[in-house]
Amino acid sequence: MNPTPASTQTFRAIDVIRKKRDGVELSRDEIESLVKVYTRGDIPDYQVSAWLMAVVLRGMTRAETAALTDAMLRSGEVFDLSSLPGKKVDKHSTGGVGDKTSLVLAPLAAAAGVVVPMISGRGLGHTGGTLDKLEAIPGFNVNLPVAQFRRILETCGCCMIGQTAEIAPADRKLYALRDVTGTVESPYLICASIMSKKLAEGIDALVLDVKTGSGAFMKSEKDAVFLAELMVETGERMGKQMVALITDMDQPLGNMIGNALEVVEVVEILRGEGPEDLRQLCLELAGWMLHLGGAAGTVEEGKEQSGKLIGSGKALEKFRQMVELQGGDTSVIDDPKRLPQAGYTMTVRSPKNGYLASLQCEQVGTACVILGGGRERKEDSVDPAVGIVLHKKVGDTISAGEPLATIYYNAEARAARARQLLEQSYQIADSPLKEKRPMIHRVIGKPGEKN
Amino acid sequence: MNPTPASTQTFRAIDVIRKKRDGVELSRDEIESLVKVYTRGDIPDYQVSAWLMAVVLRGMTRAETAALTDAMLRSGEVFDLSSLPGKKVDKHSTGGVGDKTSLVLAPLAAAAGVVVPMISGRGLGHTGGTLDKLEAIPGFNVNLPVAQFRRILETCGCCMIGQTAEIAPADRKLYALRDVTGTVESPYLICASIMSKKLAEGIDALVLDVKTGSGAFMKSEKDAVFLAELMVETGERMGKQMVALITDMDQPLGNMIGNALEVVEVVEILRGEGPEDLRQLCLELAGWMLHLGGAAGTVEEGKEQSGKLIGSGKALEKFRQMVELQGGDTSVIDDPKRLPQAGYTMTVRSPKNGYLASLQCEQVGTACVILGGGRERKEDSVDPAVGIVLHKKVGDTISAGEPLATIYYNAEARAARARQLLEQSYQIADSPLKEKRPMIHRVIGKPGEKN
Repeated sequence: MNPTPASTQTFRAIDVIRKKRDGVELSRDEIESLVKVYTRGDIPDYQVSAWLMAVVLRGMTRAETAALTDAMLRSGEVFDLSSLPGKKVDKHSTGGVGDKTSLVLAPLAAAAGVVVPMISGRGLGHTGGTLDKLEAIPGFNVNLPVAQFRRILETCGCCMIGQTAEIAPADRKLYALRDVTGTVESPYLICASIMSKKLAEGIDALVLDVKTGSGAFMKSEKDAVFLAELMVETGERMGKQMVALITDMDQPLGNMIGNALEVVEVVEILRGEGPEDLRQLCLELAGWMLHLGGAAGTVEEGKEQSGKLIGSGKALEKFRQMVELQGGDTSVIDDPKRLPQAGYTMTVRSPKNGYLASLQCEQVGTACVILGGGRERKEDSVDPAVGIVLHKKVGDTISAGEPLATIYYNAEARAARARQLLEQSYQIADSPLKEKRPMIHRVIGKPGEKN
Repeated sequence: MNPTPASTQTFRAIDVIRKKRDGVELSRDEIESLVKVYTRGDIPDYQVSAWLMAVVLRGMTRAETAALTDAMLRSGEVFDLSSLPGKKVDKHSTGGVGDKTSLVLAPLAAAAGVVVPMISGRGLGHTGGTLDKLEAIPGFNVNLPVAQFRRILETCGCCMIGQTAEIAPADRKLYALRDVTGTVESPYLICASIMSKKLAEGIDALVLDVKTGSGAFMKSEKDAVFLAELMVETGERMGKQMVALITDMDQPLGNMIGNALEVVEVVEILRGEGPEDLRQLCLELAGWMLHLGGAAGTVEEGKEQSGKLIGSGKALEKFRQMVELQGGDTSVIDDPKRLPQAGYTMTVRSPKNGYLASLQCEQVGTACVILGGGRERKEDSVDPAVGIVLHKKVGDTISAGEPLATIYYNAEARAARARQLLEQSYQIADSPLKEKRPMIHRVIGKPGEKN
């Protein structure tokens, strides 16, 4: 039980723990002090974990959530990009399976003149991570010094890196503690964690993609909406333009899951090809980014303009420029075979005729992790080449013996386990689906309408 | 954040934390494993404090409470006193101000042939502790090896010591953590802490004195009853005869507060003198101890017999024998002036005529702590000589200028602070009280009626 509990005259952790335990609202000062003394190591983990559990079970008011976000944000460096011309806009997704929209959106919005300073994470659990996907491109460097991040933004309008040590150190420390104390699952703590990192990017506006469905962290739409509203309000309290789209993650997004495979699909979308669901979501999110970034008067105009930037090849050219500036091998864009290739493939076939009624999305994500495409623990390394290509999506007609999916693998035993899980994920019905889940369930916060 | 979180195949602390967080009942095995691995240092404090906070806010079922008590009990040694003839009975109080009943009850019940193996604690917060009172007797040793404890029990029928390192080490470790993480205030955790230590004494029956009122930890009668029922049921589940008396602690018990002063009052009671409220409570509790210890057919008979044992001097003789066997100076019994004496006294007088309407009991306790008679922190030492003698109790008629209390002190500055607090504690009304609070509010569990 070291270090010794803090007991300065001005701040006593025990008082803050007791107040939260008893459901009393904490002041901005109390929250700020707690985050400050914890970040510098002056109160022990065991006091903070008790406080975190009290937050999980008692909740937080909007003011407390904003104060926590602000304190975590100010525990580290906040980028000042005001010297760059144009609005700075980012997009953040709560994570899903096959979600490669960030790789499309950063160059797409930058091609329209919006500055996109994107700081992303790695895959954890059943979901993939943007950094892992980018690193499937040989040479691509996501660990750039801040000065270089800024130079690339100036040159290209977008840059995609990982979290630096300077950004929100309080979040890093708190997240590590939450991870081992059962205190991850709180919308208030999730909101503060996401928003403190995103606001450190020095952005003017943020488009949130909050997933719902069997592959999302928030399985129910109710929980997704709650989190979305919390993040939108927190961002607005801190002077940012905010919008959140509640989008479907009841089946994987697009057809490809796995790091190199997803880069292939990103290039397809940027060429105006690729699967319809992914294309639709990218245009929707891009529409908002362009609108909030001042490049389009309305979201509809933003979508239209995005479609044109893809059609003209300008979005793909921007992607090429970014890859080059970040040290990546741009030849993979023209010849996807130059991306890491799995040694073997295996086909999963349908046992019967019918219609694909549902695809257990989290299990598909876990199957990809089992192949080596994701991480079971933080310290695991990922195999960029492995993954899954889906040949059928929910609603499709299926004949017995027809391929449902192809597994790309490098290890036989892993493939066998992944196959088993994948086979269990398909639910095939005798009659066609009555209703299809929409891609966009809801839009929270309408910053465009307020202006 | 060391040591590393436990993650053996059979037990993962994180799963138990999550279950409790989500309000799912834990199994006996899960609780036992948690206590076991924590006691041997194999899971970190920060996981256990998160779990404790979840227990505070989610509560526990009766089965969980019994499992926790049992696991804490079995973390250490459990005395086997079955070779001693007669029933072993103890009394436990939840703590108050001026509560010196243990020093009366152990010899009184022993004089009736009941074996009283009493393990007590020290004062903390505004309440006094039995060990501190005993140590006011020069030479009295509360730190006896187990073998000597047993020998004295055989010879004398009662022995009063402090907790040994062998008893419930899990409780010691958990209590230290609860103390700094805002997780003391849970009836389930309080029950398990008390009962695990008491059941380690190898007793057949336990009489609980659960205090309610302004000087009690449980201020409201509702909370006191809840805790009492929990402890009674937990003890019964573990095969013990249990009864709990909800007793008044809205003003100090008896007239004397402070360690040596309370010994004086104990001797008065054992001589058949002393204040009526203290005498009444001692006889009530002794009645139950004699009844459950098989020395009296009914509680009423037990009370009668206790009165006779006081009248005949046998109870006082038993006290003398115990003091002698534990190394204490028995001459203090005949000449209380040989007890530690404060250097100075100071009288607090009434500012007006009227009736004593109430006496803020916790503040009186705190005033005694300020004098040096109790501990503000665990590591503080106590001054046995200081304290407060009350000249008026609630309901008494008071004239302006009449002494309300005498402060016994050794340090001027402390006395001034104590006096101020004491003066604030008295509420004097113009008209007499309509109703007096009873000493015994309620009796929980009627083991006599079941047999």
